[in-house]
Amino acid sequence: MKVFFITGNDGKFREAKALLSKSGIGLEQQHIEIDEIQDREVEKVARVKAKFAFSVLKKPLFVEDTGLYIKALNGYPGNLIKHFIEAIGREGILKCMEGEPRSAEAVSVVAYADGKGDVKTFVGKVKGNISDYIGKGYEFAWDSIFIPQGHTKTFAEIGMKEKNRISHRKKSMEMFAEWLKAQ
Amino acid sequence: MKVFFITGNDGKFREAKALLSKSGIGLEQQHIEIDEIQDREVEKVARVKAKFAFSVLKKPLFVEDTGLYIKALNGYPGNLIKHFIEAIGREGILKCMEGEPRSAEAVSVVAYADGKGDVKTFVGKVKGNISDYIGKGYEFAWDSIFIPQGHTKTFAEIGMKEKNRISHRKKSMEMFAEWLKAQ
Repeated sequence: MKVFFITGNDGKFREAKALLSKSGIGLEQQHIEIDEIQDREVEKVARVKAKFAFSVLKKPLFVEDTGLYIKALNGYPGNLIKHFIEAIGREGILKCMEGEPRSAEAVSVVAYADGKGDVKTFVGKVKGNISDYIGKGYEFAWDSIFIPQGHTKTFAEIGMKEKNRISHRKKSMEMFAEWLKAQ
Repeated sequence: MKVFFITGNDGKFREAKALLSKSGIGLEQQHIEIDEIQDREVEKVARVKAKFAFSVLKKPLFVEDTGLYIKALNGYPGNLIKHFIEAIGREGILKCMEGEPRSAEAVSVVAYADGKGDVKTFVGKVKGNISDYIGKGYEFAWDSIFIPQGHTKTFAEIGMKEKNRISHRKKSMEMFAEWLKAQ
């Protein structure tokens, strides 16, 4: 069986390939230009994206999307984190949260469209806290301001290798791989 | 000639009808469920929306969309203002801007799809400032924290009637009406 991973991110693809190869699933990377819908909910955005990609490719495929839900901001920005960070930066986010509780949740959703275009989602979550400083190290999106539960350092300081072992994406991808293997 | 205004907002429709009737254009309201794309740029979001609506209706139509660009937040949130306000509230926005310059711009875009589905946009802008308090009065979206240039009060305090006379939407709608009349 062959499944397409719709992503423009080669790093994500390699990570997924390593995981899914254990399940005897052939993985192929494909880039499709997709407008994301304007919604905070990662699950909803990923689902619509998978449906759209299927309407183009007509073959079994999946997409993966992430979000950061900050409790003090009533769950903002969720999937809108890309735009939020791009505009106000990590410093801006820390400013909006001055004196607020730090609780947050990192979420990754794999949305899989099967041969008929029916979509199934796999949700990986990591609870944690927003740091009150910008962590040095592996610079990726909001990795430098998110401290996963049970740790004292941000994802950025923990480093990519260890992060990939415990991350929200690792969880969603693993759930997906296990399910796929069982089919 | 008849043009459809795609909106679920009856107030917006009445406002547009009053403006466009002067141009001898028949206006009809139509509601179409449209997923907005995830983008800060109002013009881009409105354009995609008009194209999508045309793919459903296949008749001349327009949509109208707004955004608030806050300079201190590097133009954030633009068209994402709905989600931003919904999550962190007007208080949250004021907090993110503590001690920052207040300059902002309110933008309205009318995107018109003609009988062939070609899209033309009309952009209305009002410069102004983010207040450092929440204005009492006409409660609508961010009206209570935006002070238009040349005024000392927020849109909320100015009131709906006066606001509709000077607003970004009034400008974009007027540009559109004038253009339509000249066709």
